[in-house]
Amino acid sequence: MAVVEIVTTGTELLLGQVVNTNAAYLAAKLNELGFDVLYQTTVGDNPGRMREVLRLAFERADIVITTGGLGPTYGDITKEVTAELVGKSLLLDPEAKRRIEVFFSRRGVCMPSRNQKQAMVPEGAVVLYNERGTAPGVVYEHQSRLIVHLPGPPSELKHMVEHTLLPLLQARYPRQGVIFSRVLRVHGIGESQVEERLTDFILNQGNPTLALLARRGEIWVRITAKGETQAAAEHKIAEWETEIQRRLQPHVFGQDDEALEVVVAEALKNRALTIATAESCTGGLLAGRLTEAPGSSAYMTGAIVAYDNRIKRDLLAVSEEMLLRHGAVSEETARAMAAGVCSRLGTDMGVAITGIAGPDGGSSEKPVGLVYIAVAYQGKIDCRRYVFNGGRDEVRYRSTQAALDQIRRAVLAVE
Amino acid sequence: MAVVEIVTTGTELLLGQVVNTNAAYLAAKLNELGFDVLYQTTVGDNPGRMREVLRLAFERADIVITTGGLGPTYGDITKEVTAELVGKSLLLDPEAKRRIEVFFSRRGVCMPSRNQKQAMVPEGAVVLYNERGTAPGVVYEHQSRLIVHLPGPPSELKHMVEHTLLPLLQARYPRQGVIFSRVLRVHGIGESQVEERLTDFILNQGNPTLALLARRGEIWVRITAKGETQAAAEHKIAEWETEIQRRLQPHVFGQDDEALEVVVAEALKNRALTIATAESCTGGLLAGRLTEAPGSSAYMTGAIVAYDNRIKRDLLAVSEEMLLRHGAVSEETARAMAAGVCSRLGTDMGVAITGIAGPDGGSSEKPVGLVYIAVAYQGKIDCRRYVFNGGRDEVRYRSTQAALDQIRRAVLAVE
Repeated sequence: MAVVEIVTTGTELLLGQVVNTNAAYLAAKLNELGFDVLYQTTVGDNPGRMREVLRLAFERADIVITTGGLGPTYGDITKEVTAELVGKSLLLDPEAKRRIEVFFSRRGVCMPSRNQKQAMVPEGAVVLYNERGTAPGVVYEHQSRLIVHLPGPPSELKHMVEHTLLPLLQARYPRQGVIFSRVLRVHGIGESQVEERLTDFILNQGNPTLALLARRGEIWVRITAKGETQAAAEHKIAEWETEIQRRLQPHVFGQDDEALEVVVAEALKNRALTIATAESCTGGLLAGRLTEAPGSSAYMTGAIVAYDNRIKRDLLAVSEEMLLRHGAVSEETARAMAAGVCSRLGTDMGVAITGIAGPDGGSSEKPVGLVYIAVAYQGKIDCRRYVFNGGRDEVRYRSTQAALDQIRRAVLAVE
Repeated sequence: MAVVEIVTTGTELLLGQVVNTNAAYLAAKLNELGFDVLYQTTVGDNPGRMREVLRLAFERADIVITTGGLGPTYGDITKEVTAELVGKSLLLDPEAKRRIEVFFSRRGVCMPSRNQKQAMVPEGAVVLYNERGTAPGVVYEHQSRLIVHLPGPPSELKHMVEHTLLPLLQARYPRQGVIFSRVLRVHGIGESQVEERLTDFILNQGNPTLALLARRGEIWVRITAKGETQAAAEHKIAEWETEIQRRLQPHVFGQDDEALEVVVAEALKNRALTIATAESCTGGLLAGRLTEAPGSSAYMTGAIVAYDNRIKRDLLAVSEEMLLRHGAVSEETARAMAAGVCSRLGTDMGVAITGIAGPDGGSSEKPVGLVYIAVAYQGKIDCRRYVFNGGRDEVRYRSTQAALDQIRRAVLAVE
């Protein structure tokens, strides 16, 4: 399998002014086609250091893809440094020049003379014309290595990759196989509990491989397989997936890009259920997530954010006596809020969250991170107590995550 | 100046499943303190390749900072591979172990035995205890190089960097000069209008420099200066800042990390005002942002998310006739919602958002992205009409941004 190194260039990356999204984008696209991206390196617009980084990349990779440094300024040196390193001349490509001139004339101005530099390409290179900007990309060979230069702006790069680079790479490297991944998304048990249940898989990796990743408020179980074809790779994954699903049930809520709010939205829609939320410490964030998907008005009726206890009384019918006796953060209040919003808004399901998001307001009896979540559905109220770690943001986000999972379990009737 | 290499580890980065935000974050923080980040490298959880990458990093950098691979699983190998490479043993740190045990006991469970691995640290290392998760970071020396291991999850990493790593690095490497930046955050005018007002600054850059950055729903004007000391750099910035502020008023709402919700929270708190929101298309996100800051109960009373028109009638007293005549997305409805939530929840200020977030539901008269925002305050209602570009998420986020800015302008009495 062809080994790829992605070399992203640009001082703005080293200064941390820009997040490197190009590397992730390229890696995802190349992995899908069965290329093995083993290294990503970032270096600034400095000739000496760039030369060293490229020299090493040519040693350890079959395909070296650079991004950035194809602009018209003196600071743009990627093409020049690389050509010098591999001993190629840069020649004017008339078609590239013509296209840059057109680009400027459409804006009603002449091409500045310094932009001619962008039309210079290494001898023998295939030119990837830029449909979104001025800098063309290039592809050329050097001692059985493939060198690819791509422009830095993500919209230019993406268009070029999808329309010209990927077809070219597929033609040049007939597939020796496909890598395919499936992510199972888990909520409700911790990373080490997941690992305990999957120890034999983890110790017997080969093809497929298995990885556990802790994400914000969830665990990802990633199964990756190589195969001659997509179907073969998927078949290998399917064998593991069934058993892994079985061992982790009912904690696997979705796969790949199925976020918890998406899964919950589908479940509510399929059963034609309506829902409302009553929120204290999350301040409307659960309602915000429940309305993230298009078409959410099919199930979402509304929400009452009862930040002040007065609102809990007036709009959610939580009694003064209960608030005094148990406090706003208590199982009793959570239950009353869930029942209250359900009857007040006339929905099939009511969900309440009350807790202490911090950083202040905690006590030894009721610490920061203590959250009660109640789901009223079919005449019953399921209330659970959580203590979340982390800062205020984290406690609030994890509360919405836990609430969504309680809704999911209630609707699907799993424990 | 000390040279830094950031080595981010994790196969998920090479697969393109995760964008590498840690590298940009670390680079920005280190540059501020005068460190020279010259390389960023990403490698997977493979011992052989990780060893080679680390070996090279030790050759070309004074400080090598790794992120990721400190978890409890077999796939987490960063600490182990590095220690073996430099010939250090890993020893149990009792305090780290105790903290991990506390982390689990707060959740009411025992520490799984495999998490003990996270408390193993290289001999002689300074341990950076993790206030946000289980994996401690470590700092140790090897042949006059500094090795730093940080956990991968961004919230854990950031807290550790700001509270323990940066002070430690500053003490270890006395400064040889300072780069300092100030960001002025702007809402209410576009990037090209900002540029027009600041053309002379942009053309006369040197020290300081000026950069405009379009961020989600706002524009950042970044002034960067170099100086012998922090005070000298700040002085250079102050000269420009005063004049730039003057030209962009009243659109500059804050600086550096002052998000719009933070500025609004301060303004409300200082004037002892209470607020409530009535939200349709944003589904509670504005309330969520208004409760992001600690102590938000001082001004936030509550919110009514009126997704269904029935809720607009029943809880916000928007008349059936108005909804029929003008529609739910109209200036009239927005005004009625703002007045309704204000009187219903008994607050000084009421804010309403109603609009079409899309992707469906638009018409030629009322396109996707059309949003009305009304602020009721001191007996008057200020209602504005917006048409936002972008997808559903973007329209919803920009609506909350515009609403917060309307609140700010109403409270501060600026136009």
